[in-house]
Amino acid sequence: MREVKIKELEHLRAAADESGPARLLGMSLIELKEGYAKARMRVSEDHLNFFGLTHGAILYGLADHVNSAAANSLGRRAVMTQSSTYFLANPKVGQEIFAEGRVTKSGRKLSLLEVCVSDGKEAVFCRFIASCYFLDEEPK
Amino acid sequence: MREVKIKELEHLRAAADESGPARLLGMSLIELKEGYAKARMRVSEDHLNFFGLTHGAILYGLADHVNSAAANSLGRRAVMTQSSTYFLANPKVGQEIFAEGRVTKSGRKLSLLEVCVSDGKEAVFCRFIASCYFLDEEPK
Amino acid sequence: MREVKIKELEHLRAAADESGPARLLGMSLIELKEGYAKARMRVSEDHLNFFGLTHGAILYGLADHVNSAAANSLGRRAVMTQSSTYFLANPKVGQEIFAEGRVTKSGRKLSLLEVCVSDGKEAVFCRFIASCYFLDEEPK
Amino acid sequence: MREVKIKELEHLRAAADESGPARLLGMSLIELKEGYAKARMRVSEDHLNFFGLTHGAILYGLADHVNSAAANSLGRRAVMTQSSTYFLANPKVGQEIFAEGRVTKSGRKLSLLEVCVSDGKEAVFCRFIASCYFLDEEPK
Repeated sequence: MREVKIKELEHLRAAADESGPARLLGMSLIELKEGYAKARMRVSEDHLNFFGLTHGAILYGLADHVNSAAANSLGRRAVMTQSSTYFLANPKVGQEIFAEGRVTKSGRKLSLLEVCVSDGKEAVFCRFIASCYFLDEEPK
Repeated sequence: MREVKIKELEHLRAAADESGPARLLGMSLIELKEGYAKARMRVSEDHLNFFGLTHGAILYGLADHVNSAAANSLGRRAVMTQSSTYFLANPKVGQEIFAEGRVTKSGRKLSLLEVCVSDGKEAVFCRFIASCYFLDEEPK
Repeated sequence: MREVKIKELEHLRAAADESGPARLLGMSLIELKEGYAKARMRVSEDHLNFFGLTHGAILYGLADHVNSAAANSLGRRAVMTQSSTYFLANPKVGQEIFAEGRVTKSGRKLSLLEVCVSDGKEAVFCRFIASCYFLDEEPK
Repeated sequence: MREVKIKELEHLRAAADESGPARLLGMSLIELKEGYAKARMRVSEDHLNFFGLTHGAILYGLADHVNSAAANSLGRRAVMTQSSTYFLANPKVGQEIFAEGRVTKSGRKLSLLEVCVSDGKEAVFCRFIASCYFLDEEPK
């Protein structure tokens, strides 16, 4: 596989953070390297469901932000085809939360990504695993 | 199980549509009855990822909007504990998309929800299945 | 896509039912056509876990028997890459159980399969969804 | 939570390995402690599907053997309600394979289990995550 240039990763990071969903939800990447990404957001009133709990789709959004950045950090275009998400605990309004994700397997056409959403310390809110599919051919 | 009153469903529907995530993403319930919900949204530029494709988390958000409304339509408080999502196709900017979901199993403490996100006709964008957990005791 | 010949389906069905896992668990296909398969087995003492409940892997085995037959019924070689399984109820020893599965989406390289394991009437034991990957190129 | 006695774990291990599915597939636990289990099996001709590949349900069976032992190692009765499985590579006939699983979260009624099926070294064949449900009340 060809080398991924730092400049490409910087470009990817900027493009991801400038996308509509990232701005709508207030998500930003704080680290991005080949096969790895980390992002953060702060839970706000706008992220709560009708129970006053942080909405599952918000935790999912942060997990997916990391997932798509990490999946595309290998120098190939990847799209998610499947995800499994486990909701374990719920963060509070005002809390800063983090998602950290890795490519744990990368094949010819498919890759596996594993993400953890947490408070950056011990409290895990969500576990997320995804299959991604490479749109391009494998580089020679 | 006790009867769910129409008024409760109206209250649930309003609360769901007034929640922050529903307003941020532009989602609204167009039908809600016991064990069933349907919602719609229109895909906008704000919903695109850095590829210009509708972001997975947006399709997930609409699926989950229907999921949480349907899961809570039985007169018991339910929270999602797990979801599996399959991304099959991608809607275009400007397109109106729909999610339709049903409680396909409801037990003492757990329920199963199945959701389909589509263009309301033949094109299916996303399949979503979730396990929900009832926070309260089963009504006598 | 080219036409799948009846003879190929008969060959596939025989090969699937003669495989080791099918014989070990006592599974047999009772219907196979393009994009659809149905199989049965009878729950025996050998299928119980240490609680005396039918083991999850047994229900999974029957679901996957149908999944792999249906996935390969389109005239292309398909392998499962991911599955999500929901266990809803447990069949008893001596009970005949059925799995019925369909290809609900078939693309260039990936397909989606949905399977239901039941008593053939109303009782659903397990819901199973799988992503499959076509090993060959799409036929012209 | 009350202490789990060594004797209980020994009893659980024996019961799991003597169950029908463990004997049918040739699976045995090689380690079991609170919240952790490891098992092995050898791939045989009987484990192949009609392609000559190790059947997904066989890898799933080994993952689930470890899953149910670990889930029940906390001194409470647990049943699996959902699993997500990712198939990454395929072991060969004659190869010894291992599954290693941990309870990564244990709550009042639900727990999360994560399992890896591998050659015991670097080759990972399958990743498996499951939600389990405690049948009993939480010990005081």
